[in-house]
Amino acid sequence: MRKVFRRLSSVEEVLSLIDSLGRPRVVEVDIFSAAGMVLAEDVSSELDIPPFDRSKMDGYAVRSADLEGADERNPITLSIVGEASAGHPFGREVGPGEAVRISTGAPIPMGADSVVMEEFCSPGDGRVTVYRSVAPGENVQPAGSDLRYGETLLRVGARLGPREIGLLAAAGVKRVRVYARPVIALASTGDELTPQGEPLSLGKIYDVNGPALYSAILEDGCDPRYLGILPDDEGEIEGAVREALGWADAVVLSGSTSVGAGDVIYRVVERVGRLLVHGVAIQPGKPTVIGEADGKPLFCLPGNPTSALTVYRLFVSPVLRRMAGLSPARSAGPLEAVVAVRIPKERGRRAYLPVHLVRGASGEVLAFPTPTGSEAVSTLARADGFLEIPENVEYIPEGSRVRVFLFSEDSGPADLSFIGSHCLGVERLLSLLKERSPGSRVKYVPVGSSGGFRAVRTGEADVAGVHLIDPATGEYNMPFLEAYGVSELAVLLRGYLRVQGIMVAPGNPKGIRGVSDLFRGDVRIVNRNPGSGTRVLLDLLIEREARKRGVSPDELRRSLRGYDISVSSHGAVAAAVASGRADAGIGIEAAARAYGLDFIPVAEERYDFLVRRDRMEKREVSLLVEILRSDEFRAALEELPGIRPSEGMGEPVS
Amino acid sequence: MRKVFRRLSSVEEVLSLIDSLGRPRVVEVDIFSAAGMVLAEDVSSELDIPPFDRSKMDGYAVRSADLEGADERNPITLSIVGEASAGHPFGREVGPGEAVRISTGAPIPMGADSVVMEEFCSPGDGRVTVYRSVAPGENVQPAGSDLRYGETLLRVGARLGPREIGLLAAAGVKRVRVYARPVIALASTGDELTPQGEPLSLGKIYDVNGPALYSAILEDGCDPRYLGILPDDEGEIEGAVREALGWADAVVLSGSTSVGAGDVIYRVVERVGRLLVHGVAIQPGKPTVIGEADGKPLFCLPGNPTSALTVYRLFVSPVLRRMAGLSPARSAGPLEAVVAVRIPKERGRRAYLPVHLVRGASGEVLAFPTPTGSEAVSTLARADGFLEIPENVEYIPEGSRVRVFLFSEDSGPADLSFIGSHCLGVERLLSLLKERSPGSRVKYVPVGSSGGFRAVRTGEADVAGVHLIDPATGEYNMPFLEAYGVSELAVLLRGYLRVQGIMVAPGNPKGIRGVSDLFRGDVRIVNRNPGSGTRVLLDLLIEREARKRGVSPDELRRSLRGYDISVSSHGAVAAAVASGRADAGIGIEAAARAYGLDFIPVAEERYDFLVRRDRMEKREVSLLVEILRSDEFRAALEELPGIRPSEGMGEPVS
Repeated sequence: MRKVFRRLSSVEEVLSLIDSLGRPRVVEVDIFSAAGMVLAEDVSSELDIPPFDRSKMDGYAVRSADLEGADERNPITLSIVGEASAGHPFGREVGPGEAVRISTGAPIPMGADSVVMEEFCSPGDGRVTVYRSVAPGENVQPAGSDLRYGETLLRVGARLGPREIGLLAAAGVKRVRVYARPVIALASTGDELTPQGEPLSLGKIYDVNGPALYSAILEDGCDPRYLGILPDDEGEIEGAVREALGWADAVVLSGSTSVGAGDVIYRVVERVGRLLVHGVAIQPGKPTVIGEADGKPLFCLPGNPTSALTVYRLFVSPVLRRMAGLSPARSAGPLEAVVAVRIPKERGRRAYLPVHLVRGASGEVLAFPTPTGSEAVSTLARADGFLEIPENVEYIPEGSRVRVFLFSEDSGPADLSFIGSHCLGVERLLSLLKERSPGSRVKYVPVGSSGGFRAVRTGEADVAGVHLIDPATGEYNMPFLEAYGVSELAVLLRGYLRVQGIMVAPGNPKGIRGVSDLFRGDVRIVNRNPGSGTRVLLDLLIEREARKRGVSPDELRRSLRGYDISVSSHGAVAAAVASGRADAGIGIEAAARAYGLDFIPVAEERYDFLVRRDRMEKREVSLLVEILRSDEFRAALEELPGIRPSEGMGEPVS
Repeated sequence: MRKVFRRLSSVEEVLSLIDSLGRPRVVEVDIFSAAGMVLAEDVSSELDIPPFDRSKMDGYAVRSADLEGADERNPITLSIVGEASAGHPFGREVGPGEAVRISTGAPIPMGADSVVMEEFCSPGDGRVTVYRSVAPGENVQPAGSDLRYGETLLRVGARLGPREIGLLAAAGVKRVRVYARPVIALASTGDELTPQGEPLSLGKIYDVNGPALYSAILEDGCDPRYLGILPDDEGEIEGAVREALGWADAVVLSGSTSVGAGDVIYRVVERVGRLLVHGVAIQPGKPTVIGEADGKPLFCLPGNPTSALTVYRLFVSPVLRRMAGLSPARSAGPLEAVVAVRIPKERGRRAYLPVHLVRGASGEVLAFPTPTGSEAVSTLARADGFLEIPENVEYIPEGSRVRVFLFSEDSGPADLSFIGSHCLGVERLLSLLKERSPGSRVKYVPVGSSGGFRAVRTGEADVAGVHLIDPATGEYNMPFLEAYGVSELAVLLRGYLRVQGIMVAPGNPKGIRGVSDLFRGDVRIVNRNPGSGTRVLLDLLIEREARKRGVSPDELRRSLRGYDISVSSHGAVAAAVASGRADAGIGIEAAARAYGLDFIPVAEERYDFLVRRDRMEKREVSLLVEILRSDEFRAALEELPGIRPSEGMGEPVS
């Protein structure tokens, strides 16, 4: 029953095996269709450029000898015998004493040898008076002076962007031979997979790899064709692969490579072609299978989405790019980053770890492991790429330089990393920042106030949004700087005030009037995640209620139905109430409004901003502080229900 | 007749006017079609992920209480009552003393609360013996622990790459609202324009801007529709623009904006909509016209290709990108560069100058003006982008920091800049370099040996390929280090030997046996460009012949038909002979062979490599030197006709 890998290949063995996989195909296309493609031949000019002696100026084409000695005091008058403009040559020869009105780009008429600029001419009555002499050839661009017939314009391997296509067009080249966009057959395998748009039955999940790999293959200059979901059935998979080999340049499958699927995939590869790799000594990605049939590569990736994207980036992308005539290395990475926290690892296989990237104080790229593992879908939301950890280390020390492979051409280090509590006020703040600095990469990771404090300490966040109340004093945020070890590292800037309250279904069917009604027994609540300020607030409200009733807070907490069911944003609380999964939840008014819920105010709290001192000079951080202090932000907050600007926003809290 | 611009707008005025131009359209698409597009709405999860309690391992689903105290010495045996795999749940409840065989990704059956890994189990005969206890929840990923119903997955403005699309797919999202790819009507105007594939009549040129802007618009995430070439006719242009406004989101024209076309374009804009900009105070790009009709932008760019691409990059690209929902600034630039030579400029308008970029010794980007102006098509081949020169300066001093806008996402500084004489041996050398370092940007600009010496002196070249003979001594290259002022700056590395000869038509119809036959009077030759080693060689051959004949070299030179007609590569010489434009030309054997010509050997010369000392440490330069010294390169040269490896290749010439 246990799966036996023939022999795990090392990364280097796999890279050397795939080096010969996949040959580019060449097609001839029109230059318009060639945009973004890669030239498969050297291309020479088919004509001289310009194809004729061409005027560089607006003015008059003349025989330079006629104007010898002409100047301001001794102008010479010529008779205008015609006109030449771009596309409209003057058909006759220019004789002595004659001039032809000429515009930029027009061919120089026979007989004329130069052009005098119109600034030095005064025309009228069929004649032109010229106040300057000209040298032979002045303002004339001779035929072939720019490019000559037969000269190489572009060489094989050139990627055809605007300037390359312009060059071909200028030389009259209509069609060019380029590397064809490889056609890639793509399928997801697994009995547990369901396509989006269909309801999930028990034990089923949606197919992630189909759409995600489709997009990755597109980014690599290929033409993906999605075959859909195949069941864990050897015959069906083999049939689909054989059919695809008839028309595709390569086949990419994912799933069915682990033990459960019973070695289906590698047997299919063995039957339709030649098995090259059966298992790789990496984590994740061990069950990878690579083969070849009729010279066409077959890739079988793990089912887990982060693993599939990692293996795609390591082994599939270079082959597909080479088939498309592109450089195997993508323009985006790998890039060098500094590991910002110590990363433990099991000894043994080489490991690839999803990381979140942040630009540090002096422009360096900092890498932070994502808190969830590669099996988690939420990792996809957080990770910009993955770093490589060698086989024989047990950990990577803080400060090490590592190589990070990016998941996408578009991903990269955050210029502003904002981590902490979720709030619509923050969304407005970050929108204003994006307006002022559209090129900046801004990341907002809502993980609650405690997560914000911790992220500022490690440096994963430049700024955190926090609203933690100290139950002893009722004071917000300031008392926690010491506890989280950031009193030296960071400065707390005054933010705004916002109302927290109870969200209930429209019309308040359970008749909830305040916190005490939550303990009635017929009310199911939904809680916020541990570490969120809102959860701390609920705990405080429970304590106050317990004191009032003379019972222990723990006892009262146990009587609260749904206390242990938690979600991680105000929106998710509102969604739970709106969908009837819960009767009530604590959150902000704006979220309640967005879901059409009723709202019972409970407390007003301080939402402040914790900024790392060493990042204050970062362009995006100083811009954020500037916006915090602006009237524009103040006005934006006034529009949000339940939020109001405070005095001294953006100033240090003392 | 002279064109009157209403009032030239400054760059800042134009940028502020276009800031409000162009609104994105929103469409709903399937997640597969959404790849590369930009989200127009926040998207929340439509389900809990995982949607059920899920096994993280292969093993047995059990009630943890049943295994209390189990270890190697005291194993506990359970009866196997069924199986659960991914997509195939176990339908019944697991009772006390029972276990269900379970694989990764399968739902935990009712009754079971944990999974014991198969490593600790020994199954057989319908029973499984377990050698370890498990904690409740061990190896179980609880429903909703990864993402919860209602949580925001992605926010408006997110570009949908593989990870974003994977996230949507995981949450069961099938369709999303994204910004539509704007449809851009594109036309070239001008009576002088001819489409590629048609012959050129006198005064006509090929349409460059149509294909070049088509490719630029594609790069900016839009959908260009090329309308073809419109004549300089107000009625026709107006008709085409009105028609296009019916279906396009914006219209981009080029040409017909200068004096010759008689103000056609701005009158059309005034009639179909509102004129916003009529002339910009920049060089090039002054005749730019920008308008708006029904909220749709109308851009009219200059006809000159480099000017059109410059204005496109400055004003059109940001608007189109905003319409596509993208950040107005492209990921590629502007980037900061150091001006490597003093750049003169006329005082007055702000100027944009095409530049060639090279990566310097310590990674900095160096900018060199391209030798030809913006009217030249060959500028497109050389320039990577353009730098901005403020209005009120007369020159930019060497060493200044400037902003460079790139023409294309793909362009950028050369990691290796190779400038000098053209040779097929160099092409092989650079191919080997590209194989060893596929990610490096290698530029090869063949401008002749003298140009190579000069480019090494300025730093525009890291390496030059040279073969200049000293007529006095017959020595190659070494004597010129002093003359070109590079004896301190650069080191000459030994290259290879190559045969120069006379290329003639197949069968040698003119019966040419040697150099002396070239002066017979019935032979038309084609020369190489001034500064090329081959031209110097011809001059030397003329001198020797003159000495032999006892005449002056000048006299003999004048008797050589075609001496003044020059082209700038061996290939172009061969092409001229092959096409019958010339009867003979001096060049290398490989070029003659490529065009099927006959070849009469005349001299063997030294082709050496001049390397700047301060760039020796650059990765690509040291790799190049390593390849020069390799057996692989030696073998590659043996395959080229008329070229043979020399002793000590890659070693300094003393």
